[in-house]
Amino acid sequence: MISERLAALRLIMQREGWDAVIVPGSDPHSSEYLPARWQQRQFISGFTGSYGTVVITPSHAGLWTDTRYFIQFDKELAGTEFVLHKLRVPDAVQPWEWLGQEFPEGGVVCIDGSCMSVAEVNDYRQAIAPRNGRLVNRPDFIDELWPDRPGTPDDPIWVLDDQYTGRSAADKLAWLRRQLAGRGCDAMLVNSLDEVAWMLNIRSADIDFTPVVIAYLLVEKERAILFTNLKKTASPAVGRHLAAIGCEVRPYDAITDAIGRLPVSTKLWVDGNTLNEALYECARERLPQTLVNAPSPIRLEKGLKNDVELNGFRRAYLKDGIVQTRLFKWLEESLAAGVRLTEMDVADKQIELRRAQGEYVEESFAPISAWGENAALPHYEPTYEACSEVHAKGLFLLDSGGHYLHGSTDITRTIPLGPLTDLEREDYTLVLKGMIGLATAVFPRGTRGANIDVLARIPLWKALRNFGHGTGHGTGHVLCVHEGPQDLRQNVYDQAILPGMVTSDEPGLYREGMHGVRHENVILCRELEKNEFGDWLGFETLTCTYIDPSPVVVELLTQEERDWLNSYNEYVYIRLLPNLTDDEKRWLRRKTQKV
Amino acid sequence: MISERLAALRLIMQREGWDAVIVPGSDPHSSEYLPARWQQRQFISGFTGSYGTVVITPSHAGLWTDTRYFIQFDKELAGTEFVLHKLRVPDAVQPWEWLGQEFPEGGVVCIDGSCMSVAEVNDYRQAIAPRNGRLVNRPDFIDELWPDRPGTPDDPIWVLDDQYTGRSAADKLAWLRRQLAGRGCDAMLVNSLDEVAWMLNIRSADIDFTPVVIAYLLVEKERAILFTNLKKTASPAVGRHLAAIGCEVRPYDAITDAIGRLPVSTKLWVDGNTLNEALYECARERLPQTLVNAPSPIRLEKGLKNDVELNGFRRAYLKDGIVQTRLFKWLEESLAAGVRLTEMDVADKQIELRRAQGEYVEESFAPISAWGENAALPHYEPTYEACSEVHAKGLFLLDSGGHYLHGSTDITRTIPLGPLTDLEREDYTLVLKGMIGLATAVFPRGTRGANIDVLARIPLWKALRNFGHGTGHGTGHVLCVHEGPQDLRQNVYDQAILPGMVTSDEPGLYREGMHGVRHENVILCRELEKNEFGDWLGFETLTCTYIDPSPVVVELLTQEERDWLNSYNEYVYIRLLPNLTDDEKRWLRRKTQKV
Repeated sequence: MISERLAALRLIMQREGWDAVIVPGSDPHSSEYLPARWQQRQFISGFTGSYGTVVITPSHAGLWTDTRYFIQFDKELAGTEFVLHKLRVPDAVQPWEWLGQEFPEGGVVCIDGSCMSVAEVNDYRQAIAPRNGRLVNRPDFIDELWPDRPGTPDDPIWVLDDQYTGRSAADKLAWLRRQLAGRGCDAMLVNSLDEVAWMLNIRSADIDFTPVVIAYLLVEKERAILFTNLKKTASPAVGRHLAAIGCEVRPYDAITDAIGRLPVSTKLWVDGNTLNEALYECARERLPQTLVNAPSPIRLEKGLKNDVELNGFRRAYLKDGIVQTRLFKWLEESLAAGVRLTEMDVADKQIELRRAQGEYVEESFAPISAWGENAALPHYEPTYEACSEVHAKGLFLLDSGGHYLHGSTDITRTIPLGPLTDLEREDYTLVLKGMIGLATAVFPRGTRGANIDVLARIPLWKALRNFGHGTGHGTGHVLCVHEGPQDLRQNVYDQAILPGMVTSDEPGLYREGMHGVRHENVILCRELEKNEFGDWLGFETLTCTYIDPSPVVVELLTQEERDWLNSYNEYVYIRLLPNLTDDEKRWLRRKTQKV
Repeated sequence: MISERLAALRLIMQREGWDAVIVPGSDPHSSEYLPARWQQRQFISGFTGSYGTVVITPSHAGLWTDTRYFIQFDKELAGTEFVLHKLRVPDAVQPWEWLGQEFPEGGVVCIDGSCMSVAEVNDYRQAIAPRNGRLVNRPDFIDELWPDRPGTPDDPIWVLDDQYTGRSAADKLAWLRRQLAGRGCDAMLVNSLDEVAWMLNIRSADIDFTPVVIAYLLVEKERAILFTNLKKTASPAVGRHLAAIGCEVRPYDAITDAIGRLPVSTKLWVDGNTLNEALYECARERLPQTLVNAPSPIRLEKGLKNDVELNGFRRAYLKDGIVQTRLFKWLEESLAAGVRLTEMDVADKQIELRRAQGEYVEESFAPISAWGENAALPHYEPTYEACSEVHAKGLFLLDSGGHYLHGSTDITRTIPLGPLTDLEREDYTLVLKGMIGLATAVFPRGTRGANIDVLARIPLWKALRNFGHGTGHGTGHVLCVHEGPQDLRQNVYDQAILPGMVTSDEPGLYREGMHGVRHENVILCRELEKNEFGDWLGFETLTCTYIDPSPVVVELLTQEERDWLNSYNEYVYIRLLPNLTDDEKRWLRRKTQKV
């Protein structure tokens, strides 16, 4: 099927005189997870990872992705023509750099400008410039190959109450208008889906696991306009909410026209890092003198969680702690009783337990329920058709999360289901040391993720081991499970970790064909105190699920790490106690024994 | 005196119609330490620190410098009109940013383009552009105020033998010509003084503590030309050396003319990060189409030490280990005998001991010999006129280094001279933990200084303490004690730490009015091994001077740190043994007791 699609695409390339085609891995909003309509990279290649770019030339079909997906590439694209180009490895070559080297003099490359950001298109433009290459922007060129392509989603919008957001949409709009005034701007085009949803306190089910709304938001001085599928705003409650904050609604596709009719002197703020090229070009044509391309201020503001959101997170992790105590107890007892279970059975049981906690919306991403060697794929996604049975031996890794109305979770636990090898115990312990190293960090204001990421790695590095993904990502509040602006990784990136930021702490260790370990807590950056040496920050751990101490090689822990593990498990036990049955209490007491 | 000079400068500003004047803190070669001729910033302000920029306007005299020199500013510039502008602090405002804010519409700023790099001038140019400001380039405008300004130095050049450099100048020239060919260039203007000296294996005494040669080097395909004061090349040995490698000699000032007469199609490589604006402008006028501005490849090549250089470093640290054993023994015994000694006496004694080791050239920087609260100034420089007596109590800090023909050293030890406070012992221990944390790091190839700097800080950070300088700098081989391209600090900077790089590891802790602690070893990055997880690197400690264990608060050390300290001191003892008298051996044995 893939080879037929490639052949059809190459016929089009020949007809149009294109020397290369970029099939982007995103949507018009630079989203990470995509509605079915915009899964064109998956359509052409079969690759289902959340990150990847395809470049097709007459003689080459390349897919660029990062370390998370190398093993998945081999599994999913075996037997196809596709060649893997590795990113986030030493001497990685970006797709535009590769194209710049391979490109014929005076050649033509076709892009879908509606699904590539301004910044991304610029990379390609500059790369082919030395060869006098030309870019052709052909939005939705994939349509010709994809007759049954899905339309834009029409799931209803719902309003996330102020009791959960802690801040009204009216207040957020007033804040944004102050930002506009501060820069002398008249309006802002909000393009990132989670920024639109956050600004208006609205949510929807357009994308699996990510309750954003497919929409653009134009904020002007006196009014705001939401551009979205009109079916989505049919409910009276949503209509009242939007009217109350002075927000009009227009069809999704009307955004181009609206930008094209703005008064020519409008100082319009857009963020070219996420805005798609097609709409940016439209704005630039209309407002050649007054278009302002600068990072959106909403990204950081949204990342600094308020107290209501933080308490919502805490409640969500408390619920997940109860859920996972029940889940792991059930799993252990079922296996002991000889019940046969698959990875999907465990994932489904957890959803059932989460739902029972109330105020549950949906999972925050597709659960990674992985037994044995499957856990060596950091982003393994079991399906009903292809998943393993879970056996009473080795390590079982569960990376999952839920959206509750009051907050979202993202948690990974690796638990022993039976006898372990020495290597499994050692890897388990070293990864745990890393997670503790970051969680207990203290640092002065101004410190960036790249400055402290090593604290989660150094115990592994000293044993000549490493993991190929970042250590931590920001997490949204009933929004995207991965959100900026901060992250914790080796790449140098100039964003400080600030009070109010909620970030994951998830080192891991993966041995292909053997096992995988990942421990993931979510940590909140908080102010500690100020003194002559600085303004000191540290982390509060929000996650409230026990860490099984039985695989730990105690001699590998420092006294500080031992103390941390014991007091964390004690804290979990005490917090969960009021919500557990006597049977569950006894079981959890056993799982939180001191080391 | 400072106020008279400022008044005279402002009269000139009025006459010329300048609204601001930049007095740069460097020379035509972007050097850190300067010959007397180019100490114009010190001339106008009185500030003697190694880093600082002065901006004068009719109503303001500002000096910009970093955390190392805040206390020194207060001491040296008290009573003058100068205002300190702090750099390397949160929300620091660079001098060009300040000027951009304060500048009058359509104003004129005068620079000395012969002593400012292209990159630096561009910062100013861009900052005043929004106000339609104009730059006037007036090389040596300071001459009018400074009638007895010293001339260009004329100390003789000498040749550093291949037995010390491990690589002939002919080989280095051939290497550079391959780099030129790889970029399609015809010639390179080498501008950094240490790059000139390294390329040709020549040294001189033009700058105190830094045996570089004030010169430019033009490397063409068939010949090279050294532009320097002709008195410097008078010796027949130097003449023979240069002739043998096809290097002509011309007067220093002839460089401008030589650039101005290059064939107009010459593809000339210059490095605008260090090349001065005046010469760059000259090159750009002559070669508008073919000038290539890119980082010099010599910087990294010079930073990756060869085996001969590394063995030279090891021998140098061995000599310094003997020197410091003798020095600290002498100091302790002198004080016990009631001898009165000043900080300068200790520094002078060390020079005497270093000289006795043979192949000694000079100190590698002005020694920081600091007792008690003086050590709280990280870059304190005692003088005969202004230095303290050393007493048999508290901490004494000695940061010094020597150039030997085979290698250079840079070492700091903080030693107890009598009873210590609990705080002194705690600070001493925490700083030591930091130094060990970095020295024992293991990391995959590609790791940058900013990624591992925290390992030297985290023990201090956890106690809410910090130091305001970088953790480590590269050190030159019989060249500049501070050299790039690598460094170890928080700032994100995209240079990996690579095998062959020699870098200092020098955390500290400073309490104004109380005490200062710094421990500094120099560490060599080496390959460890490769495996499935990466290409692993680590450090070898080159420094071979004992670390006094007596102030250590043992409970604050992990077992790993305790083991490191004990085995390091044991290593030092065993290495030095063959060179010590029986009396010295007994003394050193006491100083290297296990904790």
